[in-house]
Amino acid sequence: MVFLSAAIVAALAAIAGAFGVAIIVRATLEGVTRQPEMKGSLQTIMFIGVPLAEALPILAIVISFLILGNA
Amino acid sequence: MVFLSAAIVAALAAIAGAFGVAIIVRATLEGVTRQPEMKGSLQTIMFIGVPLAEALPILAIVISFLILGNA
Amino acid sequence: MVFLSAAIVAALAAIAGAFGVAIIVRATLEGVTRQPEMKGSLQTIMFIGVPLAEALPILAIVISFLILGNA
Amino acid sequence: MVFLSAAIVAALAAIAGAFGVAIIVRATLEGVTRQPEMKGSLQTIMFIGVPLAEALPILAIVISFLILGNA
Amino acid sequence: MVFLSAAIVAALAAIAGAFGVAIIVRATLEGVTRQPEMKGSLQTIMFIGVPLAEALPILAIVISFLILGNA
Amino acid sequence: MVFLSAAIVAALAAIAGAFGVAIIVRATLEGVTRQPEMKGSLQTIMFIGVPLAEALPILAIVISFLILGNA
Amino acid sequence: MVFLSAAIVAALAAIAGAFGVAIIVRATLEGVTRQPEMKGSLQTIMFIGVPLAEALPILAIVISFLILGNA
Amino acid sequence: MVFLSAAIVAALAAIAGAFGVAIIVRATLEGVTRQPEMKGSLQTIMFIGVPLAEALPILAIVISFLILGNA
Amino acid sequence: MVFLSAAIVAALAAIAGAFGVAIIVRATLEGVTRQPEMKGSLQTIMFIGVPLAEALPILAIVISFLILGNA
Amino acid sequence: MVFLSAAIVAALAAIAGAFGVAIIVRATLEGVTRQPEMKGSLQTIMFIGVPLAEALPILAIVISFLILGNA
Amino acid sequence: MVFLSAAIVAALAAIAGAFGVAIIVRATLEGVTRQPEMKGSLQTIMFIGVPLAEALPILAIVISFLILGNA
Amino acid sequence: MVFLSAAIVAALAAIAGAFGVAIIVRATLEGVTRQPEMKGSLQTIMFIGVPLAEALPILAIVISFLILGNA
Amino acid sequence: MVFLSAAIVAALAAIAGAFGVAIIVRATLEGVTRQPEMKGSLQTIMFIGVPLAEALPILAIVISFLILGNA
Amino acid sequence: MVFLSAAIVAALAAIAGAFGVAIIVRATLEGVTRQPEMKGSLQTIMFIGVPLAEALPILAIVISFLILGNA
Repeated sequence: MVFLSAAIVAALAAIAGAFGVAIIVRATLEGVTRQPEMKGSLQTIMFIGVPLAEALPILAIVISFLILGNA
Repeated sequence: MVFLSAAIVAALAAIAGAFGVAIIVRATLEGVTRQPEMKGSLQTIMFIGVPLAEALPILAIVISFLILGNA
Repeated sequence: MVFLSAAIVAALAAIAGAFGVAIIVRATLEGVTRQPEMKGSLQTIMFIGVPLAEALPILAIVISFLILGNA
Repeated sequence: MVFLSAAIVAALAAIAGAFGVAIIVRATLEGVTRQPEMKGSLQTIMFIGVPLAEALPILAIVISFLILGNA
Repeated sequence: MVFLSAAIVAALAAIAGAFGVAIIVRATLEGVTRQPEMKGSLQTIMFIGVPLAEALPILAIVISFLILGNA
Repeated sequence: MVFLSAAIVAALAAIAGAFGVAIIVRATLEGVTRQPEMKGSLQTIMFIGVPLAEALPILAIVISFLILGNA
Repeated sequence: MVFLSAAIVAALAAIAGAFGVAIIVRATLEGVTRQPEMKGSLQTIMFIGVPLAEALPILAIVISFLILGNA
Repeated sequence: MVFLSAAIVAALAAIAGAFGVAIIVRATLEGVTRQPEMKGSLQTIMFIGVPLAEALPILAIVISFLILGNA
Repeated sequence: MVFLSAAIVAALAAIAGAFGVAIIVRATLEGVTRQPEMKGSLQTIMFIGVPLAEALPILAIVISFLILGNA
Repeated sequence: MVFLSAAIVAALAAIAGAFGVAIIVRATLEGVTRQPEMKGSLQTIMFIGVPLAEALPILAIVISFLILGNA
Repeated sequence: MVFLSAAIVAALAAIAGAFGVAIIVRATLEGVTRQPEMKGSLQTIMFIGVPLAEALPILAIVISFLILGNA
Repeated sequence: MVFLSAAIVAALAAIAGAFGVAIIVRATLEGVTRQPEMKGSLQTIMFIGVPLAEALPILAIVISFLILGNA
Repeated sequence: MVFLSAAIVAALAAIAGAFGVAIIVRATLEGVTRQPEMKGSLQTIMFIGVPLAEALPILAIVISFLILGNA
Repeated sequence: MVFLSAAIVAALAAIAGAFGVAIIVRATLEGVTRQPEMKGSLQTIMFIGVPLAEALPILAIVISFLILGNA
């Protein structure tokens, strides 16, 4: 049960992180395509948003390692 | 069962947090693309909205640690 | 079973709270983008709407702590 | 089984309440954005609609407490 | 099994009631936004429609209390 | 098993009734918004349609009471 | 198992009947909104279509009563 | 198991029949709204299409009665 | 298990047949609405297409009767 | 298990065949509606496409009969 | 278990094959409708694409026969 | 379990391969319809893309044969 | 359990790889259709993107072989 | 259970990685198609975004290897 628990957290955290980052990067790419002169500002918001979106998945990965440490 | 419970909370909190933040950041990026002169106001709303959206997932992560403390 | 119950409440409350807030904040951001001069009114409605949307998830978190208190 | 029942009610009530309120607030925000001069009327309808949408989730939370009282 | 049954009814009734009301209120808000002079008629239809939409969820809540009464 | 059966019927009947009525009322509201002078005819069709849509959910609630009567 | 069978038939028949009628009534309301002078013909088709759509759910309710008669 | 089998057939046949008829009637209503002078032809196609769409659900209801006859 | 098998085939065949026919009839109705002078050709294609779409569900009904014959 | 296996193959083959054919026939009907003079070519492609789409469901029906032969 | 395995492969291969072919044929029909003079090229691509799309479902059918050979 | 494992791999590989190829071929057909003079380049990209999309499903089929070899 | 594990990894990796590549190739085909003179650049990005999208599915296939090596 | 856990992590990480990269590459291709002169900037953002999106899936693959190391 320990391994299964660690697996579920890591798997769903990977899905959350990958799709969350992909949504933000796609919005940045679409923004740069429509307003090339706003490239700097959009990248800044992207660099702020990506860590915020990855904060909770990474916390979940930490919990996954904590669970694995009990195996 | 303890590990599985902690895993489910952390995994779904990661999904909720990542997608919630991604939705807000995407809206901010689209707003800045359409109205570059509103960049400041939009970022302010984003900085207010992101912690509000992450409040409950982080509470859920806390509950996950509480459950792990019983293992 | 106690831990699993607390986990399910907290996890779904996190999803409900994060997405509920994200929907409202996104609508506010889109509103400010289209009508910059309505920024004040839209933010006021946002500040009224976010606690209303988080009221029930927070009640669910309280129930989660009550259940954990029986463990 | 008692705790699981209380958890299911509270979790789904949180989802119902958060999304129900979010849908109404989003519609209000979009309405105010398009017709700024109707702000008062739209807010009135919002203040009528939100308690109506939260009535049944709160009843479900009450049932959740009743079930917990049997634990 | 008694508690689980009461929980399922109450939870799904909360979802049905919250979303049913939210759909009607949203339609009213959109209607008032497009046709401000029809505000009275639209509100009248909303006040007729909301109890009709909540009739069956409230019946389900009654059944939930009946089931709880057997516990 | 008796209580669970009654719960399933009542819960799904509540969902069917609430959403069925909500769909009809929303269509009425949209119709009145677009054609204010057709308000009377649209309300007449709504008053015919709502009982037709609620006929089967109410039959299901009756079956739910019949099942509860065997408990 | 008898009660569960009757419950499943009645519940899904309620869903089928409510949504089937709602789809037809919504189409009638939209038709009357766009072509007010066709109100009579559209109502005639609605009155033909609703019993056709409810024929099979009512047959299913009959089967539900037949199953309950064996309890 | 006999009752459950009969229930599943009848329930899904009700869903298939109700939605199949509703889709066809909705298309007829939309057609009459757009082309009022084609009302006769569209109704003819509707009267041909509805029995064709109900043929298989009614066969499934027959199978449901055959299964019930073994109870 | 025999009855359950026959039930699953018949139920899904009913769904497949009803929706398959409904999709084709709806397309015919939309075609006749847009091109009234093509009514004959479209009905011909419909009369070719409906048996083709019902061929496999009817084969599945045959298999359902074969399975019932073993009961 | 033998009957259940035959049932699953036949049921899903019926769904695949009915929807596959319906998609192709609908596209043909829409094509004839937009380009009446291409009726011959479109029907030819339809008569090529339908057997190709039904090839695998019919193979699955054959497998269903093979499995039934072992009962 | 052997029959169930063969059934699952054959059923999903039928779904994959029927829908894959239907998607390609529908695209061909829409292409011929919009560009009648490209009929030859589009049919050529269709005749190349259909076997490519059916290659893997047919391999799965082969595996289904291999599994049945062990029964 | 061995046969079931081989069945799951083969079935999902068939779905992945058929839909992957169908998506690419449909895009090629739509491209040729809009830009007939680009037929050569589009076919080249299609012939590069189809094997890339089928690479992993075929690897999965290989794994399916490896698993069957252990039966 | 060993074979089932290897099957799940290989099957989902096939789905991920096939759809990931198909999405990229479809975007390339649409890009070449709209901007024929950008064919070179688009193909370059496609050749960079496809291996990146296939990197993780291939890692998963490697894990599948590792698991099979324990059988 | 160990192999199943490793399989679930690797499979979902493959899905997350493949779709995350595909979403970003598709956005880049669409951006280059609309704004060919922004090719450099868009590729730069793509090269920043892809590793960010693959970070968590690769962490999950690492966890998968850690779990396999316990087998």
